[in-house]
Amino acid sequence: MSYFTETTSVETVNERMSAETNPRLAEIMSSLVKHLHGFAKEVNLTQDEWDFAIGFLTKTGQMCSGERQEFILLSDVLGFSMLVDAINNRRPDGATENTVFGPFHVADAPIRQMGDTISLDGKGESCLFEGRVVDLDGNPIEGATVDVWSDNADGYYDVQQPGIQPKWNNRGRFITGADGQYSFVGIKPVSYPIPDDGPVGKMLGQLGRHPYRPAHMHYLVTAPGYEKLVTHTFVGGDEYLESDAVFGVKDTLIAPYEKVDNGSTLWRSPFDFVLVPDVK
Amino acid sequence: MSYFTETTSVETVNERMSAETNPRLAEIMSSLVKHLHGFAKEVNLTQDEWDFAIGFLTKTGQMCSGERQEFILLSDVLGFSMLVDAINNRRPDGATENTVFGPFHVADAPIRQMGDTISLDGKGESCLFEGRVVDLDGNPIEGATVDVWSDNADGYYDVQQPGIQPKWNNRGRFITGADGQYSFVGIKPVSYPIPDDGPVGKMLGQLGRHPYRPAHMHYLVTAPGYEKLVTHTFVGGDEYLESDAVFGVKDTLIAPYEKVDNGSTLWRSPFDFVLVPDVK
Repeated sequence: MSYFTETTSVETVNERMSAETNPRLAEIMSSLVKHLHGFAKEVNLTQDEWDFAIGFLTKTGQMCSGERQEFILLSDVLGFSMLVDAINNRRPDGATENTVFGPFHVADAPIRQMGDTISLDGKGESCLFEGRVVDLDGNPIEGATVDVWSDNADGYYDVQQPGIQPKWNNRGRFITGADGQYSFVGIKPVSYPIPDDGPVGKMLGQLGRHPYRPAHMHYLVTAPGYEKLVTHTFVGGDEYLESDAVFGVKDTLIAPYEKVDNGSTLWRSPFDFVLVPDVK
Repeated sequence: MSYFTETTSVETVNERMSAETNPRLAEIMSSLVKHLHGFAKEVNLTQDEWDFAIGFLTKTGQMCSGERQEFILLSDVLGFSMLVDAINNRRPDGATENTVFGPFHVADAPIRQMGDTISLDGKGESCLFEGRVVDLDGNPIEGATVDVWSDNADGYYDVQQPGIQPKWNNRGRFITGADGQYSFVGIKPVSYPIPDDGPVGKMLGQLGRHPYRPAHMHYLVTAPGYEKLVTHTFVGGDEYLESDAVFGVKDTLIAPYEKVDNGSTLWRSPFDFVLVPDVK
């Protein structure tokens, strides 16, 4: 045992854990202490900067409510949420990549018939979303649930505007048949800002970053025997593709959006989802 | 510009900062992102563990109030507060070492005469604290302010028990004369737990750590032309010296506590404070 010094700070703190500590908790805390101390040492953090950090974290916690999770926003804008998503969803080439789940999913959306519309407020540019759910060999997966959700043409999800948008606006679940096909009519999504009136928004401002997410359609695709796929497809050409405030964009998730026919007002966005077997 | 990947996550996030970002903020944020991502990668943080961390940080923020600062407690028990204190108070050999300020200082305590008592509630074992404030060459410093505070015999500071303890109980300021001497009568302090009924206390429990601080007397010693000294003296022999919940103990800060005479009930704790010139 030795008393705390600047040089031995990490060991001193970590040796304090009981030998009976849950091994995974001990692993996590040891690494956390090492990296936290490494950070303070690397930048020679001042007392005033520490004071500021305590105040920032406190305000971030106190901004959280049933409708607002400011710590998730903080994790998102630091790329931490995407990193955890990436670490936990490493997949073979050819499989559809994951991206962040986001805070706007609602369980048990209505199950709709293939081709149905999910846009109930009459706003926005209609778009036909269609494609197949397949395995790594391209074989169709029957009985897959394609759960979809997006913002409306004003940039808000239904749950952000209860009483203004119809319930289940731009949401629905579709179950594939033997051909693995899915199709539904929604709107061409629009880009929107993450909530930026709190400490995280202020931080983005100080870093010269905007709060926008590029337009995207959310998908949660599940099928018995396959890994759960949580992803978006992004609208190709969106001005925020290269600067998504939460770093959710991946090359392979940028989908084409094209007019169904010359002169048509209907957009069409084809995209196939490739699932991997669940071996857990 | 490249999209986010597990491998390039740090660079992708840090490149997003504007070139006009305040250079010190940019330095701090770059290092923070590097170490946060390094942590998640090193332990392969799971989605469930991330969920838990978000909940923990949220509860920690929501435990904070005017009277309670749970994020400071978190920083304290992770050794982070002591590390920042150490980084900002590197001193030459022979100078009295710093330790954490703690949350219980109150500015503008009464200025008392040398030898006065600071213990106003009649509880505890009386102790004479005395010594000199000197420079690195051992010369007395005249006009130094020795601001002292401690818990009472029940382990609480006066500000934790308004209406129960007398105001300014176990607090006072003493101004040195030409001899640099200080002396006052307080009590032999007692060890006490940091507040452990919140998320930080629960974490300590999971790590098999107790919440106690070894008994100590707080000192804030200031003198024109010298660096501010924030420190404690610890009661030699205290059972928690080697396991202070906030890692505040340093070898050189353990003070002797001895009876004034054989058969006396009065303790005596001599300690000299050695200040360094303020060259800032």
